[in-house]
Amino acid sequence: MAVSSSLFTSLLQGSMVAPKTLKCHREYMCSPSNVSCRQSGYTKSMNLTHSRLLPSGKLSKCEQTDGFSSKDRSQCCAVQVENAPSFLVGKKFQLDDVIEALQFDRDILGAIFEVASEMEKIEKNSSRSQILKGYLMATLFYEPSTRTRLSFESAMKRLGGEVLTTENAREFSSAAKGETLEDTIRTIEGYSDIIVMRHFESGAAKRAAVTAGIPIINAGDGPGQHPTQALLDVYTIERELGKLDGIKVGLVGDLANGRTVRSLAYLLAKYQDVKIYFVSPDVVKMKDDIKDYLTSKGVEWEESADLMEVASKCDIVYQTRIQKERFGERIDQYEQARGKYIVDQNVLDVMQKHAVVMHPLPRLDEITVDVDRDPRAAYFRQAKNGLYIRMALLKLLLVGW
Amino acid sequence: MAVSSSLFTSLLQGSMVAPKTLKCHREYMCSPSNVSCRQSGYTKSMNLTHSRLLPSGKLSKCEQTDGFSSKDRSQCCAVQVENAPSFLVGKKFQLDDVIEALQFDRDILGAIFEVASEMEKIEKNSSRSQILKGYLMATLFYEPSTRTRLSFESAMKRLGGEVLTTENAREFSSAAKGETLEDTIRTIEGYSDIIVMRHFESGAAKRAAVTAGIPIINAGDGPGQHPTQALLDVYTIERELGKLDGIKVGLVGDLANGRTVRSLAYLLAKYQDVKIYFVSPDVVKMKDDIKDYLTSKGVEWEESADLMEVASKCDIVYQTRIQKERFGERIDQYEQARGKYIVDQNVLDVMQKHAVVMHPLPRLDEITVDVDRDPRAAYFRQAKNGLYIRMALLKLLLVGW
Amino acid sequence: MAVSSSLFTSLLQGSMVAPKTLKCHREYMCSPSNVSCRQSGYTKSMNLTHSRLLPSGKLSKCEQTDGFSSKDRSQCCAVQVENAPSFLVGKKFQLDDVIEALQFDRDILGAIFEVASEMEKIEKNSSRSQILKGYLMATLFYEPSTRTRLSFESAMKRLGGEVLTTENAREFSSAAKGETLEDTIRTIEGYSDIIVMRHFESGAAKRAAVTAGIPIINAGDGPGQHPTQALLDVYTIERELGKLDGIKVGLVGDLANGRTVRSLAYLLAKYQDVKIYFVSPDVVKMKDDIKDYLTSKGVEWEESADLMEVASKCDIVYQTRIQKERFGERIDQYEQARGKYIVDQNVLDVMQKHAVVMHPLPRLDEITVDVDRDPRAAYFRQAKNGLYIRMALLKLLLVGW
Repeated sequence: MAVSSSLFTSLLQGSMVAPKTLKCHREYMCSPSNVSCRQSGYTKSMNLTHSRLLPSGKLSKCEQTDGFSSKDRSQCCAVQVENAPSFLVGKKFQLDDVIEALQFDRDILGAIFEVASEMEKIEKNSSRSQILKGYLMATLFYEPSTRTRLSFESAMKRLGGEVLTTENAREFSSAAKGETLEDTIRTIEGYSDIIVMRHFESGAAKRAAVTAGIPIINAGDGPGQHPTQALLDVYTIERELGKLDGIKVGLVGDLANGRTVRSLAYLLAKYQDVKIYFVSPDVVKMKDDIKDYLTSKGVEWEESADLMEVASKCDIVYQTRIQKERFGERIDQYEQARGKYIVDQNVLDVMQKHAVVMHPLPRLDEITVDVDRDPRAAYFRQAKNGLYIRMALLKLLLVGW
Repeated sequence: MAVSSSLFTSLLQGSMVAPKTLKCHREYMCSPSNVSCRQSGYTKSMNLTHSRLLPSGKLSKCEQTDGFSSKDRSQCCAVQVENAPSFLVGKKFQLDDVIEALQFDRDILGAIFEVASEMEKIEKNSSRSQILKGYLMATLFYEPSTRTRLSFESAMKRLGGEVLTTENAREFSSAAKGETLEDTIRTIEGYSDIIVMRHFESGAAKRAAVTAGIPIINAGDGPGQHPTQALLDVYTIERELGKLDGIKVGLVGDLANGRTVRSLAYLLAKYQDVKIYFVSPDVVKMKDDIKDYLTSKGVEWEESADLMEVASKCDIVYQTRIQKERFGERIDQYEQARGKYIVDQNVLDVMQKHAVVMHPLPRLDEITVDVDRDPRAAYFRQAKNGLYIRMALLKLLLVGW
Repeated sequence: MAVSSSLFTSLLQGSMVAPKTLKCHREYMCSPSNVSCRQSGYTKSMNLTHSRLLPSGKLSKCEQTDGFSSKDRSQCCAVQVENAPSFLVGKKFQLDDVIEALQFDRDILGAIFEVASEMEKIEKNSSRSQILKGYLMATLFYEPSTRTRLSFESAMKRLGGEVLTTENAREFSSAAKGETLEDTIRTIEGYSDIIVMRHFESGAAKRAAVTAGIPIINAGDGPGQHPTQALLDVYTIERELGKLDGIKVGLVGDLANGRTVRSLAYLLAKYQDVKIYFVSPDVVKMKDDIKDYLTSKGVEWEESADLMEVASKCDIVYQTRIQKERFGERIDQYEQARGKYIVDQNVLDVMQKHAVVMHPLPRLDEITVDVDRDPRAAYFRQAKNGLYIRMALLKLLLVGW
């Protein structure tokens, strides 16, 4: 989606001039009493989708311009996303789509976490909010992920919204007949107000966002991004420790293939005085790009082969699953890597009282089940936090702050 | 479903005598202050389903008669449907099930389009209507069709209704254990208020309609009918051109196998001074039955091999996909047919300003993507119109006019 | 789920002391004006789930104790379930999970049937109740069962509740990556208020119930239990005959493999002067465990090879499908067993006027279709009763009596 509701609000309040991103794809000229919009080419009805973002009656005039091709528009968009270091626009935050962890800076993370925290209260009171009543979310999953899908659908329904589900879009949809993702998105956006998408190809979510006139949330695109997982991880750390600055985090397990730990390391670099320990079998060590990035941001990090020592020092022990599917036929390497670093009662014994164990789930035996009953086992609370983060994002994208 | 709500309303208003269809399957004797009903055999609870159609308290007496078998009832029903040239009954329209394009005459089409147009306003205002609150739609899909399913589910939810989904009934349901369609329908009708059904066998929807005590909508039955697609096509033409009489329509692509173009040709015959051009590779030409039908109805048609010339004359260029699955092992024929008629910028260049390009989607390369940005590319608007048509049909079948 | 709402209510009313089950897993000390709870280990947030059961503001203090492991808790729980001969606690019934037919005694069956009967009225008036508004049910199906799933989802939606669906959890979920059922349950319970579960392994539902902090309903676990089917069968007999004492029931067909008839025989033993006839091909005769159980309970039973004679004497003829899948390669035995006992017009002719034919569905040809139109064919009404029973159970588990 191109223009956020909050942005609109601020524009309507006359508090600021239109920022650069506004110029790039669809042009809206707004004043408190008069809104007109020009829109490039192909989607006559797209402005209607946006009308929910405007006080009714404000969208008084829409002109079509044929000057922009959708291709041009897309490239321009993508550039904009990467150039915009902050989503803070005037007094309001801007949030059109959720595509990658890179989108978020410290300010917007803090603001999202505040909304997520409000969402916990809604859930606790069990007076189910109705703030998204009348909104429809489509879950377009090109590969199944029951956990993520149910989490999003629960989030939408907890806020009074409704859901259209596609559990296996790859096999069932027109994709099987050769339809492009872009065409599918243009059709589905006609039926819903927001699309939560999981895809097997890296970059698919960004392509969808460029095409769609409604918000897109990336629920994982192949080896690429899974930004809501990254957000819930950081949110959980804040909830468990009460802070994000000055913490020590041990990342354990498959650091080479786990996009979770890569995104987490990236986001942690936004906070002060964070120290990161990498503990992994040799075959799945953290890659240099992240290490270089951390160094460039002044984040201290070190590699260690001693889980016990790291666990005794850390505030967070973030364990991950060794993913068998990444080893192909090298089963011996998998078996060796798998058993090397296990979080069990012995690890708990050396951990500090306030420290917690996290895991993105599902887990196999890299955390023993006897750890579950320890209050420092935070992973099921972490999964639950995914609900609150997704509730927050749905609210923000659909109705704004 | 046998007796429509609108029919009931008119009966209750004492404005007319019961028409012929009433005598055939279930007999209702009604007066404004007293309604009694007799019902053939097997469905003790069917009258309960109908109670929603009556002012509460009106259904004071129900007697069962054993005289009719469900078989007799069915045959009688089917005959009635085909003999009834209009669904207009007294001041009200009658609409029990949506099974095939043949059901609709010009009057009822116009009336449905008016309701569909009201539905557009509901959606635009984003004040989601609640007129179907409390109603449950079951989507019973024996073969997957994500696009059609989501369109129906969106329609139901946009009107405040709820949905039960079966994405792959063929594999999952009791059908796999050998249950008849009739038995499945009798079970599912106990759980829902309307069934939207897609099946792999021609005629399945009619069999379901004969069995069910609740409305059935055919969302495609194999090589048979897909009436809501036909309706949305005609609706789109009216929306785009502002009229249906006196138009010139070019049907392009796979005319032999595409049920879409066959149904569309059939429905266009109901309008005045329509001219149809068939443009297709030799191997997939329009079959004689439709040509003969058009001729018998006085509709002008001609076959042409020159897409450019047809495009320059037509108000509608209706492109279709060459369906690879229809060619079996004759890949060479498919490849030859596939590339023959492409709608691209050159075709647009010769088209009139007011003319539009339609396509039932999904498309492969029979329309090039650069066409998308031209305002005359109507196919995504056409897909969106499917939502409004389905909203209209759900409203009409469940609560009447 | 550990503590029922009804139990809570009675505690809050100060009418009784906490019964034994309360001591076993999670400890709640309650007085009308002050509620505190202690909870074993691993689920910090579990008490929040329970807060919906308490008048808001009552849950003033929660302490965590580390004394119990989840394992200990589980075993203790399971024992309690089996030792408790009645679910009657003080003036209220207790119902935490629905796992097996064995849970129900005559009193609780009668009470559930009363609620189910109220549910019929809700459905009939079509003024859809909203008593479960704000509640979310997750249908976690590890093997598909469209009929059962739709029945539960319809029940939830008829009461204003919402649904999260997993049609094929076995293939799609984290189970495929090796996650334990327990971990899956702990995650899903974070997203929903009640879990309806179907699994391929006997005992899976009980494991889930022991793990979960929210109610679990067993929708069939492999060759194990399918308690809601058993309840709807008994409910149907009561609805059709007006009584359960003093009835004669013929169980026909596959009595060796059909868990339906086994559960039904078990539950019928709770009523007075019931006589059961077993009519089955030799290869699928009723097993000795049920026969011995009936004998021990003083229930009269006999085996017969004469369906006509049994039919003429019985109040209920309960036909079942000969399940081909149980015969493996012994197709000849299957074919022989299959055709042996058919309920057709001849059987109807000897049946008493008040007697009815039941069948758990799906049926193949063991009941001929001409039987359907006879008012004594109760099997589609039986399927519909499944809706009411499930509505009743969802209401009872989520909001109590």
